[in-house]
Amino acid sequence: MSPTLLVLNGPNLNMLGTREPANYGHETLADIERLCCETGAALGLEVECRQTNHEGQLIDWIHQARGRCAGILINPGAWTHTSVAIRDALVASELPVVEVHLSNVHKREEFRQHSFVSAIAVGVICGLGSDGYRAGVQHFAKRLAG
Amino acid sequence: MSPTLLVLNGPNLNMLGTREPANYGHETLADIERLCCETGAALGLEVECRQTNHEGQLIDWIHQARGRCAGILINPGAWTHTSVAIRDALVASELPVVEVHLSNVHKREEFRQHSFVSAIAVGVICGLGSDGYRAGVQHFAKRLAG
Amino acid sequence: MSPTLLVLNGPNLNMLGTREPANYGHETLADIERLCCETGAALGLEVECRQTNHEGQLIDWIHQARGRCAGILINPGAWTHTSVAIRDALVASELPVVEVHLSNVHKREEFRQHSFVSAIAVGVICGLGSDGYRAGVQHFAKRLAG
Amino acid sequence: MSPTLLVLNGPNLNMLGTREPANYGHETLADIERLCCETGAALGLEVECRQTNHEGQLIDWIHQARGRCAGILINPGAWTHTSVAIRDALVASELPVVEVHLSNVHKREEFRQHSFVSAIAVGVICGLGSDGYRAGVQHFAKRLAG
Amino acid sequence: MSPTLLVLNGPNLNMLGTREPANYGHETLADIERLCCETGAALGLEVECRQTNHEGQLIDWIHQARGRCAGILINPGAWTHTSVAIRDALVASELPVVEVHLSNVHKREEFRQHSFVSAIAVGVICGLGSDGYRAGVQHFAKRLAG
Amino acid sequence: MSPTLLVLNGPNLNMLGTREPANYGHETLADIERLCCETGAALGLEVECRQTNHEGQLIDWIHQARGRCAGILINPGAWTHTSVAIRDALVASELPVVEVHLSNVHKREEFRQHSFVSAIAVGVICGLGSDGYRAGVQHFAKRLAG
Amino acid sequence: MSPTLLVLNGPNLNMLGTREPANYGHETLADIERLCCETGAALGLEVECRQTNHEGQLIDWIHQARGRCAGILINPGAWTHTSVAIRDALVASELPVVEVHLSNVHKREEFRQHSFVSAIAVGVICGLGSDGYRAGVQHFAKRLAG
Amino acid sequence: MSPTLLVLNGPNLNMLGTREPANYGHETLADIERLCCETGAALGLEVECRQTNHEGQLIDWIHQARGRCAGILINPGAWTHTSVAIRDALVASELPVVEVHLSNVHKREEFRQHSFVSAIAVGVICGLGSDGYRAGVQHFAKRLAG
Amino acid sequence: MSPTLLVLNGPNLNMLGTREPANYGHETLADIERLCCETGAALGLEVECRQTNHEGQLIDWIHQARGRCAGILINPGAWTHTSVAIRDALVASELPVVEVHLSNVHKREEFRQHSFVSAIAVGVICGLGSDGYRAGVQHFAKRLAG
Amino acid sequence: MSPTLLVLNGPNLNMLGTREPANYGHETLADIERLCCETGAALGLEVECRQTNHEGQLIDWIHQARGRCAGILINPGAWTHTSVAIRDALVASELPVVEVHLSNVHKREEFRQHSFVSAIAVGVICGLGSDGYRAGVQHFAKRLAG
Amino acid sequence: MSPTLLVLNGPNLNMLGTREPANYGHETLADIERLCCETGAALGLEVECRQTNHEGQLIDWIHQARGRCAGILINPGAWTHTSVAIRDALVASELPVVEVHLSNVHKREEFRQHSFVSAIAVGVICGLGSDGYRAGVQHFAKRLAG
Amino acid sequence: MSPTLLVLNGPNLNMLGTREPANYGHETLADIERLCCETGAALGLEVECRQTNHEGQLIDWIHQARGRCAGILINPGAWTHTSVAIRDALVASELPVVEVHLSNVHKREEFRQHSFVSAIAVGVICGLGSDGYRAGVQHFAKRLAG
Repeated sequence: MSPTLLVLNGPNLNMLGTREPANYGHETLADIERLCCETGAALGLEVECRQTNHEGQLIDWIHQARGRCAGILINPGAWTHTSVAIRDALVASELPVVEVHLSNVHKREEFRQHSFVSAIAVGVICGLGSDGYRAGVQHFAKRLAG
Repeated sequence: MSPTLLVLNGPNLNMLGTREPANYGHETLADIERLCCETGAALGLEVECRQTNHEGQLIDWIHQARGRCAGILINPGAWTHTSVAIRDALVASELPVVEVHLSNVHKREEFRQHSFVSAIAVGVICGLGSDGYRAGVQHFAKRLAG
Repeated sequence: MSPTLLVLNGPNLNMLGTREPANYGHETLADIERLCCETGAALGLEVECRQTNHEGQLIDWIHQARGRCAGILINPGAWTHTSVAIRDALVASELPVVEVHLSNVHKREEFRQHSFVSAIAVGVICGLGSDGYRAGVQHFAKRLAG
Repeated sequence: MSPTLLVLNGPNLNMLGTREPANYGHETLADIERLCCETGAALGLEVECRQTNHEGQLIDWIHQARGRCAGILINPGAWTHTSVAIRDALVASELPVVEVHLSNVHKREEFRQHSFVSAIAVGVICGLGSDGYRAGVQHFAKRLAG
Repeated sequence: MSPTLLVLNGPNLNMLGTREPANYGHETLADIERLCCETGAALGLEVECRQTNHEGQLIDWIHQARGRCAGILINPGAWTHTSVAIRDALVASELPVVEVHLSNVHKREEFRQHSFVSAIAVGVICGLGSDGYRAGVQHFAKRLAG
Repeated sequence: MSPTLLVLNGPNLNMLGTREPANYGHETLADIERLCCETGAALGLEVECRQTNHEGQLIDWIHQARGRCAGILINPGAWTHTSVAIRDALVASELPVVEVHLSNVHKREEFRQHSFVSAIAVGVICGLGSDGYRAGVQHFAKRLAG
Repeated sequence: MSPTLLVLNGPNLNMLGTREPANYGHETLADIERLCCETGAALGLEVECRQTNHEGQLIDWIHQARGRCAGILINPGAWTHTSVAIRDALVASELPVVEVHLSNVHKREEFRQHSFVSAIAVGVICGLGSDGYRAGVQHFAKRLAG
Repeated sequence: MSPTLLVLNGPNLNMLGTREPANYGHETLADIERLCCETGAALGLEVECRQTNHEGQLIDWIHQARGRCAGILINPGAWTHTSVAIRDALVASELPVVEVHLSNVHKREEFRQHSFVSAIAVGVICGLGSDGYRAGVQHFAKRLAG
Repeated sequence: MSPTLLVLNGPNLNMLGTREPANYGHETLADIERLCCETGAALGLEVECRQTNHEGQLIDWIHQARGRCAGILINPGAWTHTSVAIRDALVASELPVVEVHLSNVHKREEFRQHSFVSAIAVGVICGLGSDGYRAGVQHFAKRLAG
Repeated sequence: MSPTLLVLNGPNLNMLGTREPANYGHETLADIERLCCETGAALGLEVECRQTNHEGQLIDWIHQARGRCAGILINPGAWTHTSVAIRDALVASELPVVEVHLSNVHKREEFRQHSFVSAIAVGVICGLGSDGYRAGVQHFAKRLAG
Repeated sequence: MSPTLLVLNGPNLNMLGTREPANYGHETLADIERLCCETGAALGLEVECRQTNHEGQLIDWIHQARGRCAGILINPGAWTHTSVAIRDALVASELPVVEVHLSNVHKREEFRQHSFVSAIAVGVICGLGSDGYRAGVQHFAKRLAG
Repeated sequence: MSPTLLVLNGPNLNMLGTREPANYGHETLADIERLCCETGAALGLEVECRQTNHEGQLIDWIHQARGRCAGILINPGAWTHTSVAIRDALVASELPVVEVHLSNVHKREEFRQHSFVSAIAVGVICGLGSDGYRAGVQHFAKRLAG
């Protein structure tokens, strides 16, 4: 059976394609999730995608991934900069985590320069648009194969 | 048909009238919502009022206002100082936003001096009690008429 | 006899209508002062308007308002961020103070984020253009009536 | 009738016993809640225990405790460091609050050194593991008796 | 033979009962030391209590406890915030340390928010008055028994 | 001929006796100036007293003192914390300067903790009320005699 | 007709030649103003020189230059570091501004390292003594010719 | 019987007259203590002078002054900047405190700019040499008489 | 003809495979350069790889890429955190830049948290080891194709 | 024989005329060096111009100027903000130094606000484009003549 | 007669050999003092060694060294980071001072990075274990001979 | 065969004996290198000395020392404070490193207080002039012998 990769998107990412295209591009969340699933499938990874604007929901999903999934690819959106609870949930999951951002956060406001997730992640990809998700899925495939 | 103004109140504002009257006064949230509706009605504005203690709920409401409402008058309460997610939702709504606070936050704790919302709002009113809501509704009426 | 509200404008506000319209709009100071007087008159308030580029002059006017006026609506302009002397004068006047700014200072330079006046004012209105003055006069009318 | 003490646990504390045992020990949340109930029962206190990963839920529970409970023993978990909304809810409850942490936060990351709750609590206990809960329940018993 | 717990109190704590009762309560140091001894005795712990206003004396006592005592319960008073020497002495003693404060230091001046001791202690209790000492003694009893 | 000591008072000090008596006491500026003159007269010093709310006026007076007076006793009021121009004027005067404050600035707002004048003064007296002026005049008498 | 360049000098610069020669040299303000006029005259520029110790006066002069002068060469003296009002006046004038300082401010106190004017000026010259004024006048001649 | 004023000098002040005369002058501690006694005697005050290099000793003396003396004039020397324990002892004494420094600390190292004592003192005198002690004694005489 | 991608590695990266394997893994620079070339070749990209410990050399190479190459994939190594000159060279090249780091810099020293390059890059990849280079090359292939 | 002025340009300045014209203008480095030579020649100064992207090369040139040249006009480019080594080399040369920047650094990124060179230079000119070099050469001519 | 070098060790250094061997090694204080004496004796220096945990005692010894000893080699231990009083005592001694630390403080906690002594010492040696003391004694021998 | 110690000197140290003698003394680099060689020879150490003003050169030398030398004694000069690349090269060399400075950096500019090398060195010696190099060589001899 294929290992499962959980792809999580945080708040406002359901608005993708309409919200601030200068920062986030024109693809919708459905486009990105499809890209993740297809990339994973081609590499022998089951990809499961979820999005929520409710922090508690995200934490619950992360807890449930423990022992059931092989890794988490997460775009925590705005919670990147403010949520210690999500950081702690990711640690509690005991899974490898890759953090991804559509936009290059380093070109934006000062408060977007700090991530509570990065220090507990395997790595971080930002600014490559949906291509960052694809690279993240590929990295998990390589990692799980390795 | 009248344009609709969405009036949003954040966490703990359901406790108004009982909570810390030295900071927030004796009016209840119902009193304030009635004042907003009556002020709007007199100026040709439909006013819709909501309150929640759940950040995800507030984000969902803001997303739904996009294309349906003409503006948002928001008292983000404690989230003013901590929620980047609400800031991003307000930007994603592409609506004019006015921020209002019952108390004068500049007289309170240091951590209440910074707002994540102010920089993306049209303007901010604080310290005028329920009168700040009335002024906010009036400003939208004038703005939408202008 | 009507109570008197003193409306004070600080440095460079005499240039309104010509100076940085992107920040301050196209209305002149005379337009704004007329709006204050008319708004006050309709609500039973005598409104007295003054502007100066000389800090000492502003301090003297504030001192003279003590015991003679019922409140001060002030746009301290650039002194908002630099003058402890005006803050102290306002406290010495023992009058309620409302601070108003035409532009939304939270969208501008970092040094405009701090006000020496806000912490000793009743409340603050910014970003609503001349409408902020109108709201300020209305608040004094309500306050003095209440 | 016995006074009721509300024991609240915040995000990720449902993972206790599995999550980061080096920081949090091997007891489960059920073990701790049982300890609280038994300690309270022996001292004439009804103890009611709840845990949630949803901030809004925690706020609602705190509001409902107002007038119904005699005190709150809270381990806000990660929200300790980020949630002004919970601080405000606790103040709005008008109940005495004791803050407890299983691990000694002073040995951990810099961002865990600040608590939004401590300044509005009666006191704080950290680093004593489940024994800190027991001491908290005992303190309420003594306090309510006193 | 019972294990010995050393209870140390730092500068100005000899003034308890008279000094700043709003912060420290009305009990005297003798009351607190008696409470520690009785609590310890009931739990099979020999409790030895000392107080000094001389930092060097405190360091000497801590050194002497090495190999002779089973733990140190310490209220370092003002030295909490300023003495690296006491921190180093406690580490040199190779004993478990619990830090206790009568008042809730988080409600007081900014300079009382940092402790040089906390990071090398097992845990910290503050704001519970003399009850914090009792909880500390109980914790040592449990710890030494465990 | 007696040497002349210039006693300067800055903004809002003309309001003394009425303004914030909790901070500044009940004596008027006239009372304080009389005290300075009498104290000086008794010690062989001509004392000349002036007050202004206009920074430019104060600078002009300081310039004119150069070569004409023997020293300056100055209470710069709010300008203490904000005026580099007055500091530079005092240096340009090449006279010994003593800085005096009626209230103890160390008990007040953070922004009152820094003085641009102190580093170029002979010394500073604060918190002793009008007695600080008397001590300042006495010090000049002793200094000029020495 | 020749374009007019306004040369403005701020507080204490009337004391030049006597004040702190180690920092400012031995030339008087009259010497410098003569140098500016002669340099300008030789290059087809009318040069108008003014100095004041009154901020309000400087602001009024800057306002009056709008539409009447071709540029402003300004040594704001101590106000460089403290006056937002002068910065705003210069912006309101819509004229090119060159900032000049006699001394090298980078060798002096920390508080002289920041200028409110530099960010809205064309450029800045410091440390070259009166030669900085000459270079500034030359630059305007070249600029207006260009 | 005359009220007693306690004059305390902290570490290294026994070296006066020999130590860093550029900062502290040529008078010895004995000279200063004699000046205090004579000034007090002339004004009906018993003056008691002590110096120590041991913080614990100073704290003990302050405790003993409680209820026995009428005020404390203290030059805490280097402890000014580092000792919270002395601050707390002075508060515990419940006596009015005047802080005095021989040198003008504002002209010295950055770390000498903060005093733990100033905020709990009546007032502070610095830079006036031994004359600051005399002024302090005079102020107590006036205060106790008033 | 294939477009050329320049792959640059900064100081100490020639030591890869031997230096700090805990941070940088066991692959050598030759391994990584081979991976880049092969990945590029498969996607129609000419890949040119260079490494240097001399900042001036790196700047010269970046200048020469202008107009000749289609993009730059750069691991600036330690210069990431210290070299404004490389940032400026990259901007002067007018080429798209992707920044890559082998290790997750967010897990390392504080001074490695800031990059002078990130804000002028398209995006950043870190912590994925040599896989980050592969993802970078793939992104350029997609970007240049798009 | 004419005295020699060394004109040094740091990293990326070889790209002038092509690189970021909005910040640096359209003139090439050759244009600027020609302007320096011609200006110097007309005033009796031999001008020698060099540019490098290698910090070590710049340091070597500065060392060689010692005793051979009469002054250094330097645009350190990006090294302005990062190189203590160049600062130390300039001090070691024992020559007068004038620092020049084409763009107004005060309008750019925060990290360009600090210069390691300014504090050891005679003076600084920025924002005047190539005219700043001309003014610098003129100043040396005047200085060496004076 | 041989000149005398005073070797002083601060708090907790009496615990050497037992305390934190990872930081401080296995040698005892007696070993180190013997090494100092023997090294000095071989080079014609009388070495006198003392240790105390009482700051006041250390200050007294430093005062007594004035005029009697030829230099002070001091390991101030934890007081390095907190005691201005010891710094002032060393200055008052008018003796050359060399500061030594057994461990490399730069590898330890942030608060150990600052020393109040270093700026008034001749030099500092850290991280070389007891060899640092030997080097310090040798330096004094050379210095006193030189 | 004797083990080899590499002695490295960074930028501007070739100017020793001429550059800033107040900070660096009158000895030349050749004098210091001779001292190192002789000291090493006497203790059975081969000493190899090099100096460069080119960071890349220094990095290359450090890399080449790996496996060939037994230790590195380095005075990184100005790069101490700015070069992460040298720090990383030293770590990559896997050799023990001793950092030495001729002057006492703690008496100099604030930016010289931080070293990127110290935290990865065995120890640091500063302020002892050439004697610091001698002590460093002796320490390596002892260390390699030990």
